[in-house]
Amino acid sequence: MTSTGRSHLREWLSAASLRSYLAEFISTFFFVFAAVGSAISARMLTPDVTSDASSLVATALAQGFALFAAVYIAADVSGGHVNPAVTFGLAVAGHIGVPTAIFYWISQLGGSTLACLLLRVASAGQTIPTTGIGTEMTGFGGAVVESAITFMLVYTVYVAADPGGGGGDGNRKSKMRQEVAGPLAVGLTAGACVLAAASLTGGSMNPARSFGPAVVSGNFKNHAVYWVGPLIGAALAALVHQYLVFPSAPSDAYPTSAV
Amino acid sequence: MTSTGRSHLREWLSAASLRSYLAEFISTFFFVFAAVGSAISARMLTPDVTSDASSLVATALAQGFALFAAVYIAADVSGGHVNPAVTFGLAVAGHIGVPTAIFYWISQLGGSTLACLLLRVASAGQTIPTTGIGTEMTGFGGAVVESAITFMLVYTVYVAADPGGGGGDGNRKSKMRQEVAGPLAVGLTAGACVLAAASLTGGSMNPARSFGPAVVSGNFKNHAVYWVGPLIGAALAALVHQYLVFPSAPSDAYPTSAV
Amino acid sequence: MTSTGRSHLREWLSAASLRSYLAEFISTFFFVFAAVGSAISARMLTPDVTSDASSLVATALAQGFALFAAVYIAADVSGGHVNPAVTFGLAVAGHIGVPTAIFYWISQLGGSTLACLLLRVASAGQTIPTTGIGTEMTGFGGAVVESAITFMLVYTVYVAADPGGGGGDGNRKSKMRQEVAGPLAVGLTAGACVLAAASLTGGSMNPARSFGPAVVSGNFKNHAVYWVGPLIGAALAALVHQYLVFPSAPSDAYPTSAV
Amino acid sequence: MTSTGRSHLREWLSAASLRSYLAEFISTFFFVFAAVGSAISARMLTPDVTSDASSLVATALAQGFALFAAVYIAADVSGGHVNPAVTFGLAVAGHIGVPTAIFYWISQLGGSTLACLLLRVASAGQTIPTTGIGTEMTGFGGAVVESAITFMLVYTVYVAADPGGGGGDGNRKSKMRQEVAGPLAVGLTAGACVLAAASLTGGSMNPARSFGPAVVSGNFKNHAVYWVGPLIGAALAALVHQYLVFPSAPSDAYPTSAV
Repeated sequence: MTSTGRSHLREWLSAASLRSYLAEFISTFFFVFAAVGSAISARMLTPDVTSDASSLVATALAQGFALFAAVYIAADVSGGHVNPAVTFGLAVAGHIGVPTAIFYWISQLGGSTLACLLLRVASAGQTIPTTGIGTEMTGFGGAVVESAITFMLVYTVYVAADPGGGGGDGNRKSKMRQEVAGPLAVGLTAGACVLAAASLTGGSMNPARSFGPAVVSGNFKNHAVYWVGPLIGAALAALVHQYLVFPSAPSDAYPTSAV
Repeated sequence: MTSTGRSHLREWLSAASLRSYLAEFISTFFFVFAAVGSAISARMLTPDVTSDASSLVATALAQGFALFAAVYIAADVSGGHVNPAVTFGLAVAGHIGVPTAIFYWISQLGGSTLACLLLRVASAGQTIPTTGIGTEMTGFGGAVVESAITFMLVYTVYVAADPGGGGGDGNRKSKMRQEVAGPLAVGLTAGACVLAAASLTGGSMNPARSFGPAVVSGNFKNHAVYWVGPLIGAALAALVHQYLVFPSAPSDAYPTSAV
Repeated sequence: MTSTGRSHLREWLSAASLRSYLAEFISTFFFVFAAVGSAISARMLTPDVTSDASSLVATALAQGFALFAAVYIAADVSGGHVNPAVTFGLAVAGHIGVPTAIFYWISQLGGSTLACLLLRVASAGQTIPTTGIGTEMTGFGGAVVESAITFMLVYTVYVAADPGGGGGDGNRKSKMRQEVAGPLAVGLTAGACVLAAASLTGGSMNPARSFGPAVVSGNFKNHAVYWVGPLIGAALAALVHQYLVFPSAPSDAYPTSAV
Repeated sequence: MTSTGRSHLREWLSAASLRSYLAEFISTFFFVFAAVGSAISARMLTPDVTSDASSLVATALAQGFALFAAVYIAADVSGGHVNPAVTFGLAVAGHIGVPTAIFYWISQLGGSTLACLLLRVASAGQTIPTTGIGTEMTGFGGAVVESAITFMLVYTVYVAADPGGGGGDGNRKSKMRQEVAGPLAVGLTAGACVLAAASLTGGSMNPARSFGPAVVSGNFKNHAVYWVGPLIGAALAALVHQYLVFPSAPSDAYPTSAV
C-alpha cells in the first residue's frame, strides 16, 4: 500500500468518519425497525387479511415519522442520508467520494439487517415482511414506480440541503427552512410516497429498507427492483436538480460531513 | 409579431421562467401522484368495499403530506402554487400576469396528466379514480363545497405568503412563520379539507388534481364542478384577504418568481 | 349613551376590531367545518356502524390539522382563539376586556353555525352530528373529562403565547418556539385530546364546536356539558399557568389584538 | 439533620424546583391521559375485536402528538422529561442529581396515576388497559424490544437537547433546530416506535406510562419489562451519544432547570 493509500485510509477511518458511519448505522437501524416493525404489528392485529387500508396508514406514518427523526438525529454528523440511493445520487453528482459512499452503504445495509434480526429474535420468529410488487405488475413497472417515488424523495433531499434557494438569489432561503422544514419535508414525502405506491411496490425508495428484510427472511424475489429503481430515480433527481431547476447552487453544500 | 411581443415572449420563455414552469410541473406531478396513487393503493387493499374511513385517512394524509413537500420544493423557484386555483387568485388580484398564469396552468395540468398516465401504465391498467360528487348531491351543492374548502386553502396560502402580518404592523410576523409554518399550514389545511369533504365532492380544491384523472380515465362527469368551485373560492379568498382582513399588506410580496 | 360609552363603542367597532372579529369568524368556520364535515364523511363511508376506530382517526386528524391552520391564519389579527373557552380564560385572567370577549364569542358561535348550515344544505340534508357523552357516563363525568382536556388545550395555548418562557428567565424561549411550534402544539394537543376522549364525550374542548351542530340539528341534549366543562377547564388553566408554573410572565403579552 | 442537609432540602424544595416538579406532573398527566384514553376510546368503538390496525394508528398518533405537546409545554420549566427513563439517563450521565431525579420520578408517576384514576372514574368504570407483551413473546424478548425503542427515543432527546451539534463544530446546529424540530422529533419518534412495537410490547418506552395503568387496574403482569427495558435503553443512549457520536458536546447543556 502506498503512502497516499495509507493517508486516504486514515481519512476514511478517522474518528469523524467513524462517527458518521455510526450515525448512518443508528439512523438506518431506526428507520428500518419502524418500517418493518409497523408492518409486523399491523399484520398481527389483522390476522385474517393480508393487509388493509389502516395497515397502510400505520406503516406509512411509521416510515414518515421515523425518517424525519432519523434524518434529524444524523444530520449534523453524517448528513442524514439513511438511504443508499441518497448516497448514490450525491456520489454521481460528485459531492461525495466513492470510498466514503461505500462505507456509508455498508453502514446503512448493516443497520437495516440488524433491525430485522432483532425484530425476528424478539418477536419469537415472526416472518419478516419484505417489499414486493403487486400481482398484476411486471418488474419493469415496479422499477418505474420505485424510480418515480425515489426521484421525489431525493429531489426533496436536495432542495432541503441546498442552502442557496436557487434562481441565483442565495438569500431567499433561510437557515430555518433548511434546518426545520427540510427534515420534515423529507419525512412527509416518504410518508406520502408509501401511501401512493404501497399496493404497487410496497413504496420502498430505499435499497437498505428492502435489503435487511430480504437477508433475514431469505426472500430475494424481485429484489433487483429495489436497487435499480431507486438508484435510477436518485441519479435523475441529482441531475434535474443540479442542471435544470437550481443551476446556481454551490456544489460544496450538500449533506455530508465525512468527505 | 411586434418587437414588444417578442420581448414579452423572451421574458415568458427566459431561463428563470422555464425553471419556474418546470418546478410547477414537478410539484403538481408529485402531488397528483400521491393523491391518485393513494386512492388506488387503498382501493386495492379493500377490494370488497367502495371505500371506508381508513381509505379516507390514507388519501387525506397522502395529500396533506405531499402538498406540504410540493409547496416546499417549489417555493423558491415558482412560488409553489401547485394548483391552478391559487394561480388564478393571484392573477385576479393582479399579483401575476395573465400570460404567466397561462404557462403555470399548462405546467400544472401537464404534471397532473403525466402522473395519472404513469400510474395507469405502471399498475398494469388499474382504473384511475376521479373526483366525484356524492350520490344525493347536486352539482350546485358540490360547487359550493369545493368553493368553501378552496377558500380556506387559498386564504391560508395568502396568509402564509403575506410578509407583513396584517393590521399595519409589519413586524409582527417573522420569517420563520412564513418559511416553516407556512407550507405546513397549507399542507395540513388540504389534509383537513379532504377529510371534511371527501364523501361530498372528494375534496379536490384543485382543478389540476381533478383534470389529470379525468383525461386519463376519460371520465369527465361533473368535471365542471372542480373548475367552477375552486376558481370562485380562490377569487373570494384573494378579495377577502386583500380588502377585508389584511388591507395593509404590500401587493408585491406574493409568491411568484416568474413575473 | 354617555360620551365614554360612545368612545368605547367606537373602539369595539373600529376597523381593527372588526377585522379581528372577522378573523375569528373565518377561523372558527374553518375549524368546525373540518370537525363536523369529517364526522359526516367518515359516517357516509362506514354506513353499517355508528363509528369505528378509523372514523376516530379521521376526525381527530381533521380537527388537529384544522386547528393548527385556524390558529395560524388568525394569529396576527385576533390572536387566534377560535374557541370561546380560550377567550373566557383570557377574560378571567384580565388580559382581555369583557365587551371584546363578547364580540369574540358572537363571531365564534356565528362561524360555527354557518359551517353547519352550509354542510347541511350542501350535503342535501345529512344529519349534522353533535357531540354527545358515552352511554354509561353521567353529565358530571362528561363535564370532568371536558374540563380536563380543555385544561390541557388552554394551558398549551398559554405556554405558546407566553413570550417569556417562565422561571424568571425571559430569554429562554425564542420567537421560533412561539411562532412555529406554538400553533402546531395547540393543533396536535387538540388532535390528541379528541383521540383520548372521543368515546367519552366526543372530545369537544370548545363550546363553539358543540354549539353550531346543536343549533342546526336542534339537538341540545347534554349541551351544558360542553359549556360548563370547557369554561371551568380554561379558567383553571389560566390560573395554574399564571400563578403556579409561570408566575413571572408579563401580563400584557397574551394573544389578542383587539383590546 | 445537618445544616448542609437543610440547605440541600431548601434547594430541592425551592419555588423553581417545585415549579419543575409541577410541570413534570402536568405533562406526564397529559401524555398518559392521551395514551390510555385513546386506547379506551378505540376499544369502545371496536368492541368485537381486541384491537385492529386502526386502533393502533389512533393510539400511536395520540401518543406522538401528546408527547410533542407535553415536551413543549414543560421544556422551559423542567426540561420536559415526561419519562422516568429520560430522567434516569440524565442522572447516569451526571447531568442531574439523584435527589432531583427522585423528585422528578415521583412527579411523573403521580401524574400518570392521576390520569388513569380520572379516566376510570369519568368513564364509569371502564377497565384501564395496561401495556402487555405479545402471547408468543418472552419477558426477555419484551425487555429487548423496549430497550431498543427507548434507546431511539432517548437518543433523539439527547440530540434535540444538545446545543452544539457534535463534531466539535458548535455552530452547526441553530436554535431553531433545537427549539422547534427537537420536540417534534421526540414526539414523532414516540409515534413511530408505538407503531413498530405495539403488537410486541405495546410500545411503552416509559415506566410512568406503564405504571399508572398497572396501579389503577391492579394488573402488574410483566410490569418489570417496562422498567428494565427502558432504563437499560436510556442508559445506553446516554453513553453512545456522549462518548461515541457526539464526544464534544458540553456537559452542562442538557435539559433540566432544577439542578
